[in-house]
Amino acid sequence: MELDINKNMNIAKTSLPRVVIIGGGFAGLATINGLKDQEVQVVLIDKHNYHTFQPLLYQVATGGLEPDSIAYPLRKVIKDIPNFYFRLAEVSNIDTNKRKIHTNIGKLKYDYLIIATGSKTNYFGNTNIEKFSMAMKNVPQSLNLRSLILENFEDALLTSNLEERNALMNFVIVGGGPTGVELAGALAEMKKGILPKDYPDLDIRQMQINIVQGGRLLKAMSEKASEKAEDFLIKLGVNIYKSVHVTNYDGYNVETDTDLAFKSCTVIWAAGVSGELINGLEGECVIERAARIKVDEFNKVIGYKNIFAIGDIACMDTKEFPKGHPMMAQPAIQQGKHLAKNLIAQLENKDIRPFKYNDKGSMATIGRNKAVVDLPKWKFQGVFAWFVWMFVHLFSLIGFRNRAVVFFNWVYNYIRFDRETRLIIRPFKNKNKQSF
Amino acid sequence: MELDINKNMNIAKTSLPRVVIIGGGFAGLATINGLKDQEVQVVLIDKHNYHTFQPLLYQVATGGLEPDSIAYPLRKVIKDIPNFYFRLAEVSNIDTNKRKIHTNIGKLKYDYLIIATGSKTNYFGNTNIEKFSMAMKNVPQSLNLRSLILENFEDALLTSNLEERNALMNFVIVGGGPTGVELAGALAEMKKGILPKDYPDLDIRQMQINIVQGGRLLKAMSEKASEKAEDFLIKLGVNIYKSVHVTNYDGYNVETDTDLAFKSCTVIWAAGVSGELINGLEGECVIERAARIKVDEFNKVIGYKNIFAIGDIACMDTKEFPKGHPMMAQPAIQQGKHLAKNLIAQLENKDIRPFKYNDKGSMATIGRNKAVVDLPKWKFQGVFAWFVWMFVHLFSLIGFRNRAVVFFNWVYNYIRFDRETRLIIRPFKNKNKQSF
Repeated sequence: MELDINKNMNIAKTSLPRVVIIGGGFAGLATINGLKDQEVQVVLIDKHNYHTFQPLLYQVATGGLEPDSIAYPLRKVIKDIPNFYFRLAEVSNIDTNKRKIHTNIGKLKYDYLIIATGSKTNYFGNTNIEKFSMAMKNVPQSLNLRSLILENFEDALLTSNLEERNALMNFVIVGGGPTGVELAGALAEMKKGILPKDYPDLDIRQMQINIVQGGRLLKAMSEKASEKAEDFLIKLGVNIYKSVHVTNYDGYNVETDTDLAFKSCTVIWAAGVSGELINGLEGECVIERAARIKVDEFNKVIGYKNIFAIGDIACMDTKEFPKGHPMMAQPAIQQGKHLAKNLIAQLENKDIRPFKYNDKGSMATIGRNKAVVDLPKWKFQGVFAWFVWMFVHLFSLIGFRNRAVVFFNWVYNYIRFDRETRLIIRPFKNKNKQSF
Repeated sequence: MELDINKNMNIAKTSLPRVVIIGGGFAGLATINGLKDQEVQVVLIDKHNYHTFQPLLYQVATGGLEPDSIAYPLRKVIKDIPNFYFRLAEVSNIDTNKRKIHTNIGKLKYDYLIIATGSKTNYFGNTNIEKFSMAMKNVPQSLNLRSLILENFEDALLTSNLEERNALMNFVIVGGGPTGVELAGALAEMKKGILPKDYPDLDIRQMQINIVQGGRLLKAMSEKASEKAEDFLIKLGVNIYKSVHVTNYDGYNVETDTDLAFKSCTVIWAAGVSGELINGLEGECVIERAARIKVDEFNKVIGYKNIFAIGDIACMDTKEFPKGHPMMAQPAIQQGKHLAKNLIAQLENKDIRPFKYNDKGSMATIGRNKAVVDLPKWKFQGVFAWFVWMFVHLFSLIGFRNRAVVFFNWVYNYIRFDRETRLIIRPFKNKNKQSF
């Protein structure tokens, strides 16, 4: 049976202007929220049918949270909003002349197009690393990593070759940003509290957790946060290599631009992201290097009248951030909100206002009672920072159920020193051997 | 890198007798529990690293529960028990002469072998149905079904061919046992409360839920339970076809042994199970038809001295159950417990006792406030039965965290008429299009 896709996506034609939003991340959802109850038709397109709360993906990968508690159905976001549609689709390209997007389920006309496609892992052209290393940008990838970590320990039990066993228990995290630091901390806590009990017949002390990083850790944060994070990680037994770049990985041997080398079965690449570009935009608006889209101060794509970009994919050249805002949740949410306001103003022939980023600060958690927080006027680290981190993340999750389940898991894990979702639901290494 | 598997599985050799248990289901875990703190070495083998709480798989498939809340890590079950081992492996055959099992990770000697491999879906030799229909015997299968159900509705939106759209919204459940009945009820509740809001641009009234069944519903339960379940389902809008057998399915057309035929993109096969046999047993102990293993009243496999079978795979011929006990949790748990006691008695040269099944009754839920319960001395249906069903299932789950998360989800779903895990984490239809 073939579905008829040579047509519109069955979106009702109305006299309302149609706003098509590509991507249901932080930016896209903020816009949706700002546009509800307004005189527009909104079509949200995403390749997943759920919003992913990316900041907690590392906890899924390390068995601390169930994936379903950090994902939220996009249809539930827009349900009960009249004239709002969702379509599960992947956009292949934009026809800016005909004002249409082309997707795997058909074409769709837009009056206004909002590109909120976010970012993807950047391997800087190294195809070997792309092939053999693990990424952690979406739920399936995090589940793959969760499976791989556990499968490695199961395999480590079976070999009497010491080098192999160590390689199976050797984790190399490339990149010392929040993702790398938080994952390293979580692995270190698994090493301390979970694995020795789960694998009493393995010498878990042999497990190594390495962060390889070009500059200092958390380089987007303050020096103090950086130092303290390093301090916390070292106390947790993590090896930190600075001023080192990983240059190659073949699934077993990790090469760097120094004498440093590892034998490891698990390399997690958290060294960079680039925009998730869509074909069809032309001219100076596409910044090849970072794969981001140049926008003006109203998030309007340079050279186009009715196309906007927000969040990670958008690069707004400001005094404070000449290379664009940091690719994080806050700029995305703020740009999404702001664009919704401007769009409404524009439709009502009112003045539109340039975007101004309100830096609320940034934070990272290293583990139990250990976090670093940089607020604009106050930087602090330790237990209180950890509570602030938890509160902010809990509050940012979408949906009461998700908040409650995450909160319960955190309390449980804290009291019991546990991480119970250490499940290999879909084997990663032995994909072909899967019998279901 | 090749793991060295041409050897023992690195299980320490001791003077203790080694009990190898294949399968970490209800039966296997009950034995584990009974053997802890005894003078034995226990090796648990399972192809998953978690225990699956099968009675709630249908709630995973219908977006009511996250998969991780009905799975429990097997390593956590045995952690802190000295001399207890777990190995993630699939057993290919048993060498009863050399008292060894052969697995994909090597061989292992046993002194006592306990087969608790459970059951698998029985297609009665119909390869078409096996190829095109969905089963619901483990977590990945339930997640596949969850994805398929949601993908079908996404596709239904896109077609203007009425027949195709109806086929996408037509669900055929083959088998009217607890699995079929519970799944039909859950789908009916999705139809009522969730789907019209999620898909306002689809006419969800066209969605059809059909149960096709050879005899009466819930035939293992009382007539009263059967009638009431039928009554509940009809009120929920489920079509029930009795005295009909599905004979073929090609992914679109469902044929039966009557004039009845369906066009459906989703057939769920819940019409039968058969034992999950292992190669290597010989003689009269193997019952080909049901693929079960004949055991005596001590759960000892007929013809062998130190091999036992418990749970679904075991067929004990008793007066009450000449074809073996029902393939359900209760006989499995009771046999597991009992065998552990007998094994200890045998090792201590005490008398062993024959197994006696204590029928605690059975139950099934149809939906919100609707369940049927048959206790030995009391049969009841409705709201109270539903609370009893929930209490018993919550209580039977393994682990405090799982119980708490399931309980919270149930309360939330009850109050909000919701099922929030309607997520397509791994697409099922478009597996090849997966970009991760």
